[in-house]
Amino acid sequence: MKPDGGNLIGFGSGGPGGAVFKAHNPATGDALEPGFASAKPRDVDRAVQLAAEAAPVWAKLPGAKRNEFLRHIADSLEKKADDLVARAMLETGLPEARLKGEVARTAGQLRLYGEAAEKGDWLDARIETAQPQRQPLPNPDHRSMRRAIGPVVVFGSSNFPFAYSVAGGDAASAFAAGCPVIVKAHPAHPGTSEIVGRLILHAVRDCGLPEGTFSLLFDAGFDVGQALVKHPAVKAVGFTGSLKGGRALADLAAARPEPIPVYAEMGSINPVFLLPGAIAERSAAIVDGLHASATVGVGQFCTNPGLLVLQRSADAERFVQALAAKLAATADGVMLTAGICANFWKGVEARAAAAGVRVIGGSERRDGVEAGNALESRRKAAPTNTAAPVWFETDAKFFVGNHALSEEIFGPSSLVVWCKNGAEMLQVARSLEGSLTASLHAGAAEAKEPASTELADVLASKAGRVILNGYPTGLEVSHAIVHGGPYPATSDGGRSTSVGTRALERWARLVCYQGFADELLPPELQNANPLGLRRLVNGEWRDGPIA
Amino acid sequence: MKPDGGNLIGFGSGGPGGAVFKAHNPATGDALEPGFASAKPRDVDRAVQLAAEAAPVWAKLPGAKRNEFLRHIADSLEKKADDLVARAMLETGLPEARLKGEVARTAGQLRLYGEAAEKGDWLDARIETAQPQRQPLPNPDHRSMRRAIGPVVVFGSSNFPFAYSVAGGDAASAFAAGCPVIVKAHPAHPGTSEIVGRLILHAVRDCGLPEGTFSLLFDAGFDVGQALVKHPAVKAVGFTGSLKGGRALADLAAARPEPIPVYAEMGSINPVFLLPGAIAERSAAIVDGLHASATVGVGQFCTNPGLLVLQRSADAERFVQALAAKLAATADGVMLTAGICANFWKGVEARAAAAGVRVIGGSERRDGVEAGNALESRRKAAPTNTAAPVWFETDAKFFVGNHALSEEIFGPSSLVVWCKNGAEMLQVARSLEGSLTASLHAGAAEAKEPASTELADVLASKAGRVILNGYPTGLEVSHAIVHGGPYPATSDGGRSTSVGTRALERWARLVCYQGFADELLPPELQNANPLGLRRLVNGEWRDGPIA
Repeated sequence: MKPDGGNLIGFGSGGPGGAVFKAHNPATGDALEPGFASAKPRDVDRAVQLAAEAAPVWAKLPGAKRNEFLRHIADSLEKKADDLVARAMLETGLPEARLKGEVARTAGQLRLYGEAAEKGDWLDARIETAQPQRQPLPNPDHRSMRRAIGPVVVFGSSNFPFAYSVAGGDAASAFAAGCPVIVKAHPAHPGTSEIVGRLILHAVRDCGLPEGTFSLLFDAGFDVGQALVKHPAVKAVGFTGSLKGGRALADLAAARPEPIPVYAEMGSINPVFLLPGAIAERSAAIVDGLHASATVGVGQFCTNPGLLVLQRSADAERFVQALAAKLAATADGVMLTAGICANFWKGVEARAAAAGVRVIGGSERRDGVEAGNALESRRKAAPTNTAAPVWFETDAKFFVGNHALSEEIFGPSSLVVWCKNGAEMLQVARSLEGSLTASLHAGAAEAKEPASTELADVLASKAGRVILNGYPTGLEVSHAIVHGGPYPATSDGGRSTSVGTRALERWARLVCYQGFADELLPPELQNANPLGLRRLVNGEWRDGPIA
Repeated sequence: MKPDGGNLIGFGSGGPGGAVFKAHNPATGDALEPGFASAKPRDVDRAVQLAAEAAPVWAKLPGAKRNEFLRHIADSLEKKADDLVARAMLETGLPEARLKGEVARTAGQLRLYGEAAEKGDWLDARIETAQPQRQPLPNPDHRSMRRAIGPVVVFGSSNFPFAYSVAGGDAASAFAAGCPVIVKAHPAHPGTSEIVGRLILHAVRDCGLPEGTFSLLFDAGFDVGQALVKHPAVKAVGFTGSLKGGRALADLAAARPEPIPVYAEMGSINPVFLLPGAIAERSAAIVDGLHASATVGVGQFCTNPGLLVLQRSADAERFVQALAAKLAATADGVMLTAGICANFWKGVEARAAAAGVRVIGGSERRDGVEAGNALESRRKAAPTNTAAPVWFETDAKFFVGNHALSEEIFGPSSLVVWCKNGAEMLQVARSLEGSLTASLHAGAAEAKEPASTELADVLASKAGRVILNGYPTGLEVSHAIVHGGPYPATSDGGRSTSVGTRALERWARLVCYQGFADELLPPELQNANPLGLRRLVNGEWRDGPIA
């Protein structure tokens, strides 16, 4: 399968006239064929119109049918994995093994969310049967459940061309919840996006689903995305990317005549707190684990550990030196795009100039002008679009109160914050904004001390996932996982997750049916329980039919 | 118990200096003693600071303790019902029986949400145990649940001085979820608010809960409310009131450096669709039912049926005449405040002048200038702050496309929309914005026709609760109820409910614990399941401990 550069609008393609752009191989800087036509306003309108027409059909599709559709997509992704991986390697610079793994994860997500759709727990179906004799007033029969919210717009991310892109977690969970999906492809991997999009359209046809179930729009700029978020028939938005981009979309959605939810997963520094006992007990293992977590995918993971907080001691100094040596020996990596790479170097050069901050690397520690010069040399010496790990260190007194130091640098850069004692570590923790994750490494006895519990509680108040003696990268896709967190990690304050079966709940509203005859109710709420759901009946959870 | 006019800030009172205002008896227009001091910025800051300090304690309070606290408040409301109702009658003009019933409902809500807190289903606790041998990668132990979001601000409503006010559904559900609460009292019933606030503070002390669990602030204007919503330590907002007010707060919250959720329940016209069969089969019963629903509480219910859609026929004409006769014979009622009453008359006078709209009442049908003069006479002849039912009629062709006709007039006014046929009824349904409720009355055979199902589906897409052959007023407080709906009924697109046990879910974030030793986990997620929760363990719902 090869991309041909056209928008996928329902079962058709877009009109002519949009500006054409091409993907680039980040390892070489070369443009890749074909050109992709940016969608025009009429294309946006047509895609949304088709989705709005498909929405009532989708809202009534049984979970089993949605499962069939998602399994179909999963199967085709696996069948076409070689084509997909080949194109994605060209467009993203990511290695083959990683991309193969990501296709497998994406297929797994689709199947898990499909099963969740069929099982129907996420619907939260509830029934209160009538009590005509109740005093002082009768209780009418009323039954409620989650129902699909309507057309959903998904923005593909740059860093996961499969798992957070066209058939990624947002699209899969929106389909599972019963919503048509319009994807705005990430312009860094339009070819990969188009191939995946065509597989989804095959599934739409093979499963006999309506046109408008899925559309895929291209744009090298922001017009198409903004038009989608502002379109009156769009009912919710999923986004994975930068804080700036996510916030702009959330602001746009909040300012609509009818505001709509934006589930944006954005910036996250994923702090790691290291207690002295952890270093004493397993320094070498933590050096290895943290190094791997901080450099995997050239640091371009949303769960990349960007902040390391520890207490100054001879042991801790040796720990950081060992880590720095390992970082210095790490090969340069090709970043996803020229823009991301340029931002990385801009970010590290600015940080090097911040008050109280020094560059660490091997045994060298530089600050100010000297550090800036050294970084400039490294950047100039680096091959096209490559980044090397650049770590910094500072003291807690400089970190707390200097907001710029807690901002994410996307790529392989982290900041070590030295604290005088446990109280200062706690102070640093309290000063943090929201993150997707927060990690705590503690020694065996130390983990049970009240101060550690207090620190863990503060971290739990700052992150969607708090990790003990582990590393933030490597995310389970399960029923229990939470990939979310307080702002700026997400735009919704950490109330939802973009990964795991709870992700379906984002794409729904609650609807209650009062006084409906049984045969007029949706099957999910009928007495016979034809879909075999688990339901809360008069306050008790039950699996079977009701009398 | 008598109010003394002071803000309740933690266990203390506000500083001096705020502008003093008084409640007014709407039936007489007389000012009521005492004066209430508007809170100053330092009072706001102190209340939020205390709440922020109480928040970590509250987040760890066992559900049983929260239940004890809510039961305590419920018991004191019932014990002090006479004092409460006496003051509320003076401040709201609402009759004794209604207010007694509302105190009982409020106590019932507190107990139901307390039980829900103790039972803990709402936490959605989930556990995935470790699989160290899993290929290609081990699965770490990870466990997640909802956790309290932090300090919550609640705006008391004008129309339910108990059930949607200081100890009302928003405050009760926020406490049940583990959040400290700061209430901005509605200025129309500050005395009632203060007495309830003092009862809550007694419960805080008696249950040994921290200062900052609860504060109550007064303000005749908007400064205090705005400062609360903008305060960085406030994490969520509950509001019941006008579309203008709710939207202003939602916009303010969305524009914060850290946006926070606003659960605003706002405007709703609660359309009622009457099919010909329903009129043929039970005209008289529907006249009685609809009249009662539209006039109860002088039409000041958020579920007041503000729109009646039906097909023109001789039967239907007789139906509307019978309804109009009943409305004409309805006694005037005292409205909640002078402002609400003035807005009501302003609203009906404007609607009377709209193109294609006529006033109906008894057998008279007036439009244009004549209708305006008649309404002006009625308003002038009405006793202080009283409203009479004023209904209008128009044709579907005037209704669709004239947005002003679908705006809520708060009070006893509804609009009859005449359709030519079923297709036009469907067109009217499709043109509607979101509502809290939508009702459909159908004849026995008619209810099962595909056209009725289609209409019911459209109504279900427009409302949080869709009612067959019933009336929108009278709301169950249960596990299954939904009191929400698409914008403008609520600010969150109908994803949540402000009534029923699901209301707790609004005041929480998801938190996942990865790799935690059992004794370091919150009790809700420990293996032994000490709180006896229902949890999703490796994909299966289980009640007991896990091995």
